[in-house]
Amino acid sequence: MLAAYDLLLSEGYLLARPGAGTYVADTLPASRRGRATKASTARRDPRLVPLTLPGADLAPTLQPLPARDDFRVGLPDVSAFPFDIWRRLSDRTLRRVARQTADYADPQGQGALREAIAKHVSFTRAVGCTAGDIVVTAGAQQAFGLLARILVVPGRTVVAVEQLFYPSLREAMLAAGAKVVTVPTDDEGMCVDRIPTEARVVCVTPSHQFPTGVAMSPPRRAALLAFARARNAVVIEDDYDGEFRFAGRPLDALQTLDRAESVFYIGTFSKSLFPALRLGFVVAPPWARAALVRARELADWHGPVLGQEALAAFIAEGHLARHIRKMRKLYGARRTALLEALARHGAGRLEVIRSDAGLHLSARLHGGTRADAVVERAAAAGITLPPLSRFALDPHAPGVANGLAFGYGLIAEQQIDGAIRRLVALL
Amino acid sequence: MLAAYDLLLSEGYLLARPGAGTYVADTLPASRRGRATKASTARRDPRLVPLTLPGADLAPTLQPLPARDDFRVGLPDVSAFPFDIWRRLSDRTLRRVARQTADYADPQGQGALREAIAKHVSFTRAVGCTAGDIVVTAGAQQAFGLLARILVVPGRTVVAVEQLFYPSLREAMLAAGAKVVTVPTDDEGMCVDRIPTEARVVCVTPSHQFPTGVAMSPPRRAALLAFARARNAVVIEDDYDGEFRFAGRPLDALQTLDRAESVFYIGTFSKSLFPALRLGFVVAPPWARAALVRARELADWHGPVLGQEALAAFIAEGHLARHIRKMRKLYGARRTALLEALARHGAGRLEVIRSDAGLHLSARLHGGTRADAVVERAAAAGITLPPLSRFALDPHAPGVANGLAFGYGLIAEQQIDGAIRRLVALL
Repeated sequence: MLAAYDLLLSEGYLLARPGAGTYVADTLPASRRGRATKASTARRDPRLVPLTLPGADLAPTLQPLPARDDFRVGLPDVSAFPFDIWRRLSDRTLRRVARQTADYADPQGQGALREAIAKHVSFTRAVGCTAGDIVVTAGAQQAFGLLARILVVPGRTVVAVEQLFYPSLREAMLAAGAKVVTVPTDDEGMCVDRIPTEARVVCVTPSHQFPTGVAMSPPRRAALLAFARARNAVVIEDDYDGEFRFAGRPLDALQTLDRAESVFYIGTFSKSLFPALRLGFVVAPPWARAALVRARELADWHGPVLGQEALAAFIAEGHLARHIRKMRKLYGARRTALLEALARHGAGRLEVIRSDAGLHLSARLHGGTRADAVVERAAAAGITLPPLSRFALDPHAPGVANGLAFGYGLIAEQQIDGAIRRLVALL
Repeated sequence: MLAAYDLLLSEGYLLARPGAGTYVADTLPASRRGRATKASTARRDPRLVPLTLPGADLAPTLQPLPARDDFRVGLPDVSAFPFDIWRRLSDRTLRRVARQTADYADPQGQGALREAIAKHVSFTRAVGCTAGDIVVTAGAQQAFGLLARILVVPGRTVVAVEQLFYPSLREAMLAAGAKVVTVPTDDEGMCVDRIPTEARVVCVTPSHQFPTGVAMSPPRRAALLAFARARNAVVIEDDYDGEFRFAGRPLDALQTLDRAESVFYIGTFSKSLFPALRLGFVVAPPWARAALVRARELADWHGPVLGQEALAAFIAEGHLARHIRKMRKLYGARRTALLEALARHGAGRLEVIRSDAGLHLSARLHGGTRADAVVERAAAAGITLPPLSRFALDPHAPGVANGLAFGYGLIAEQQIDGAIRRLVALL
């Protein structure tokens, strides 16, 4: 059974999963794998084509069970979301749409939403853009897929990602036929001098590296833009949770610094609002915009109109800015509690990786302890957190095997100290 | 300027458009074309890859201006949609979601919606399926794209479409690298004996051929399934508006007749409800389901949850069935008015193509009148309708050049007679 499973993986055939969430750990018990393997019986039907080129590996994914202490990364707290305001805006949108003649809509996204996003990112992130530069997407995942579609020549284009990366980004690139290479990252972010010269697309998370949390330093930012300019490469800047900044002054986005129209800036409302919304966007350079819009049109024509219009009103009326301010305070308190608990209980056992923003932070264990073993023990004790190895190709690499990530989007502030105390006791 | 335009077309580079709708006619005035060509200045940036393989042509698209008498095809009347019920169900959904922990959702679609769709199509179309067979998509367009993704080997797979076809279907196949061939259709639907033996995917609209409106005859249906079985090919059955049937008894869906798991059945709520919703689905055979779900996950992870849950409740509580009954009556009256007007004013000038279902019907002009010239004159007189040539590769082919389609989704019953009278006067 495991041989068949490996075969499927190596061939790039992929497994459905009923839930969604983070990536299957090597340490998942065999019983949880069972469900995935069952689906394989008819998988080799000759009528199906693989979803990637031969040899590209795409991991099957299963959702971990919810835990008592939930440190999963990339998920926001929706309990403080103003659903009453959202409902009012949705109702108003619906009343307006009800008076209009049915039609298909703009693949680039509703004008009002692009207007609102442009103002928002211009103001909060100094990303210079107008509504015309914005392409609305179904979350960051569709942005990855559409950019891969217009930038990757299957089997030829080299795409560089960080050594530790968001798996769905890499998979979108593989699915488009890219040759994906990883580039070492250190405490200044991606080591730009290690990017292969043949890379034509470079994917980075400069505000808050996923998953380590480090910010890309200003010299590295300049170097990356110089690389792109010199090599006629493009940069995909994924700013997935940079709205939440707790210390230091924000560094300029790559998009802001860019003078060569090299940068695609991706934003999402999955972290600042909620993932069920499925709305994100790309700020695209002028030369690529038409192709990007056309790729979206070919993919699914356009996004649902009601959600886009409700979000447009939500932003325009200041609710997004207000919500981010409120959540920054709430997440900030959790982050402080987490840092204090890690210092209190973990001193000498683990070291926090410096991070000033986002919904999670990471730490490395001392003394050769393997993080994935800790994660397994923690799961049995009702604590869910991912090992950094889940976000790397080589789980044994230095700085990977001993890493843990702590999301604070879901866990209550008062739970944090106890959970960390119990976790450290498991080391 | 026109040379540049042709070059872009021939290279498969594609043009953004601010609105959406039907395909640009050869007869569009140059001033309307201007906007599209302007976007081309930076199109040849070497960083962009073409969206199709070399030589594949994708038409740029522009939206016609709304007309006084609007016979556009493929658009439903939303003025009778029970938006108050929808609002109530959306509110309820939102209240429930507000109590849940944030998470990403099932790429296959919300369970409740798949349940509801399975019951609905089992009952209304005798399409035998359960919730597990359904994959929810962002409208039929995403269904086309995802099926192309899992069935087409770029540069190799031959996909057969009807001689007259829905352009977005063909484009999704081209964008996946398919070799698309057209197969003659007559008054029994696709001429199955003319399908090239090397075709591995055959796309048909058997309930209501798009755009001619004919139903595929039972012998042709049997022959097509036999072809698929014999050649290990698959059939994509697009049942875009088959819920609206006005005469005769419904023919079995290909999916219902299929005994070899050859058929993918696509349904959409863009016609029965409204296109802004962006919800459709595929009933997929078991061997392809996991790959299809994984392709959706790679494309955009999953659809927006609120709209899916609201639709699930809308169907489960019987509102969809009620709405379809109501609209069938309303569209039926318009169809009768249209048939009467065409008989009254057009006798001897044009001939209606027999059609028992859907939101539009088609007719052919007698005496060598070119339909596109008529369409241009009609537009100047405030009447919008598409020539059949807009849905064909060869606009001069017999049965194409003299064809017109009449959508009755948007036009009021009492407008129809006058509009047809004025139209015939232009012949």
